[in-house]
Amino acid sequence: MSDNPLNNLSYDSLITFAKTLSQCARQTALPYFRSNLTIEDKQDLSPVTLADQNTERALIRLIKNTFPEHSIYGEEFGQEIQDKSEYTWVIDPIDGTRGFVMGIPLFTTLIALLKNGEPIFGMMDALALNERWFGFKDDLSIFNDNVINKLQGYKSLQDAQIFTTTPKMFAGESLLAYERLSKQAKALRFGCDAYGYGQLALGHADAVVEADLKPYDFLALVPILKGAGAIISDWHGKPLTINSNGYVVASRNAALHADILACLNE
Amino acid sequence: MSDNPLNNLSYDSLITFAKTLSQCARQTALPYFRSNLTIEDKQDLSPVTLADQNTERALIRLIKNTFPEHSIYGEEFGQEIQDKSEYTWVIDPIDGTRGFVMGIPLFTTLIALLKNGEPIFGMMDALALNERWFGFKDDLSIFNDNVINKLQGYKSLQDAQIFTTTPKMFAGESLLAYERLSKQAKALRFGCDAYGYGQLALGHADAVVEADLKPYDFLALVPILKGAGAIISDWHGKPLTINSNGYVVASRNAALHADILACLNE
Repeated sequence: MSDNPLNNLSYDSLITFAKTLSQCARQTALPYFRSNLTIEDKQDLSPVTLADQNTERALIRLIKNTFPEHSIYGEEFGQEIQDKSEYTWVIDPIDGTRGFVMGIPLFTTLIALLKNGEPIFGMMDALALNERWFGFKDDLSIFNDNVINKLQGYKSLQDAQIFTTTPKMFAGESLLAYERLSKQAKALRFGCDAYGYGQLALGHADAVVEADLKPYDFLALVPILKGAGAIISDWHGKPLTINSNGYVVASRNAALHADILACLNE
Repeated sequence: MSDNPLNNLSYDSLITFAKTLSQCARQTALPYFRSNLTIEDKQDLSPVTLADQNTERALIRLIKNTFPEHSIYGEEFGQEIQDKSEYTWVIDPIDGTRGFVMGIPLFTTLIALLKNGEPIFGMMDALALNERWFGFKDDLSIFNDNVINKLQGYKSLQDAQIFTTTPKMFAGESLLAYERLSKQAKALRFGCDAYGYGQLALGHADAVVEADLKPYDFLALVPILKGAGAIISDWHGKPLTINSNGYVVASRNAALHADILACLNE
């Protein structure tokens, strides 16, 4: 393994801590999945709202207890900055809320650890499927306790199978760009949310192209994809940070990535 | 339970046989899911092609052994008609092939039993998720060995959460109709394939609207949805048979169904 960017925090101890976060997310969120919807009306909070809020709250508590000096940025409760820390945890308690609400088990909990705004560790946990990815940027990624083989094999855009959560995430110029791309690609699959990036990391898909994302939607995916040998950037090829604009492309290799960026920016 | 349309075949014995079909589909298809893609190139057959063909072949063998006098219509191997039989089995070995290929575990095996062209029994098996639906049309449906509660609760179109596999299945007039509908509905979810109908039967979604389907894509779903108290028809409200045109609407109740049909046919 290469230099540990976490200084005094080893990969092993980080994985151990991430597994604690994973267990916490599963215990908190899963009871709301496919739960009785009549509860929703009484409390005026949807199951997914409760699941989101309670899960984020529980994860924040765990992180604060373990790393009281780190900053935290959660989807539900916003950003809490510790001046003395270069580290920030970014949390999406439930990515894929639309699927969660409609009974589809592909939703995930996303947790990123940033150093000076750049993601260095990521976890994606498909809570209902008992599938979990860890990624250490530029070094390695792990799926269900196994190191993922680095992605291999060239794919042309014409042979590429591309994930996108919904074509409705594009508008105006980005819609025109996406339509150009979709005409050239081999196949499209919708409804993936972050889970699609996980399948790309495992080599089952060739690319993911999205827009209109928030930092907590994609930061955890950066170390997972880079650790698996994939390329991930914004639509102009720039590295993704907490300040990126939410336009994301991930590809199984550099050649395909270049082709996709060229098509999007034609 | 109401009159058994299968004459001498009891519900219990039909379920027992369907479970044998389910076991057969799981054993045959699952080894191909997320399998090593290098096998594909050597044999010049994709994993999903092999999974499709081998699964259908195995299911046909089982049905022929048990009901040699029944007709069979499979996605892969076409229709084999027995003149003396009013019964036909319709098989889609893997519905959701795009997802299967790209590592998404929502694909299903669909099996319908028709009497004089009308579906009276259906099975949908989400092989990789260990989730299975049986439906006895107008009577009852079963999910993982539990009888499904009949769908209740009115939803207006404005509150409806609607599944569609992909907006790319619409064109021309049907695309205009779908766009009208999508503007009025509360939310859309893509990438569901038949699995979305299963979530509707369980009450997690409110409707499914699709086009360009084949008989083996929807006939098994008819008994499952009707047995759960939902409504399913073509876009003009006509019952779905083996001769339907592939335009399908399913809704959690009659009022919502009427609203959706009105919007589509405006």
